Amino acid sequence: MLPRVVRELTHELTRLPGIGPKTAQRLALHLLRQPRPAVTRLADTLKDLHANVRICSQCFNLAEDTLCAVCQSQTRVKTTVCVVEDALDVEALEKAGAYDGLYHVLGGVLSPMEGVGPEQLTLEQLFDRLARDSIGELIIALDHTMESDATARYIAQRIDPAHGGVNEQKITITRLARGLPTGGDIEFADAPTLRAAMSGRKSI
Amino acid sequence: MLPRVVRELTHELTRLPGIGPKTAQRLALHLLRQPRPAVTRLADTLKDLHANVRICSQCFNLAEDTLCAVCQSQTRVKTTVCVVEDALDVEALEKAGAYDGLYHVLGGVLSPMEGVGPEQLTLEQLFDRLARDSIGELIIALDHTMESDATARYIAQRIDPAHGGVNEQKITITRLARGLPTGGDIEFADAPTLRAAMSGRKSI
Repeated sequence: MLPRVVRELTHELTRLPGIGPKTAQRLALHLLRQPRPAVTRLADTLKDLHANVRICSQCFNLAEDTLCAVCQSQTRVKTTVCVVEDALDVEALEKAGAYDGLYHVLGGVLSPMEGVGPEQLTLEQLFDRLARDSIGELIIALDHTMESDATARYIAQRIDPAHGGVNEQKITITRLARGLPTGGDIEFADAPTLRAAMSGRKSI
Repeated sequence: MLPRVVRELTHELTRLPGIGPKTAQRLALHLLRQPRPAVTRLADTLKDLHANVRICSQCFNLAEDTLCAVCQSQTRVKTTVCVVEDALDVEALEKAGAYDGLYHVLGGVLSPMEGVGPEQLTLEQLFDRLARDSIGELIIALDHTMESDATARYIAQRIDPAHGGVNEQKITITRLARGLPTGGDIEFADAPTLRAAMSGRKSI
């Protein structure tokens, strides 16, 4: 039988997503073979995690202060808001350097099957923000799944003044383009992607 | 940009085997969403790891004391030694309940390509043990790879008295049987496994 602390660590590691008992055992043994300071550093970083991370009070992105780095920045366009599912999406868009406005992190998408309703997300805070600040464009940057599509429709409906929405200032609502990914092979593209790429074709 | 501590944690996690930058980010965000006590518990377990795990002075298995649980046990057959690559192999054999002797953990297999020679393993300690204790059977429980086969041959040669080995007491050397795994489908078995299963067939 493995020593108690190895079994405990294995047990803790299996709580992580995508890590089963075998992988957890291998990770535990790998950590045992590492020099002790390296493992201590990982442990210390884990302990610091919650103490040093906050949620941005404006956009719900991860932050080190009351506001996240994007909301604090003086150079961002304050009239555009990009709605994303989580902080990793912000990170991906920032790394791509494709966007210079603000964000709004929903914390998920509507999914009645998994018990995620509007109140589990930061949707009301989004509508408050749109009613309060002068936002010209709302970019919905959600994946193309059924749940995301439903969430996008819900947002559009709630903003529409015909449904009592906040859109008196005529906010333009857009979604990210669908099509073939860069380097993507037509041969291996799935049918919905090909249909989207075909219907969204542009003259060159 | 993600908060500093999230980037640090992501960086630390990518040092683990099989965890790339994307998985590390997802794990970091998952940990952030967990309650703080759960993450603290993981951190504490990591800190305890090196302090509470020792290497068995006899068989090099993981241990909580000078000797591992197997070597300490009064009920094990002391005249049989099973050579395995690492402590996870001991764990697997123990869980299977297939063996009641002692072990010897090599810490790897010979691999000149990766710079693993006899001195990187616990081979000399194995030969010392065989010369000192009265061992009747040495079971080589290594995988069936080229490196493992070479390691098995190396052990057999070094023990052979014709090569100046320690085998004056005539130690029987065996290897685990090769064949189809339980539940394994002949249709999907690879050629070397099928050849081994055929040549090792038994009358029923």
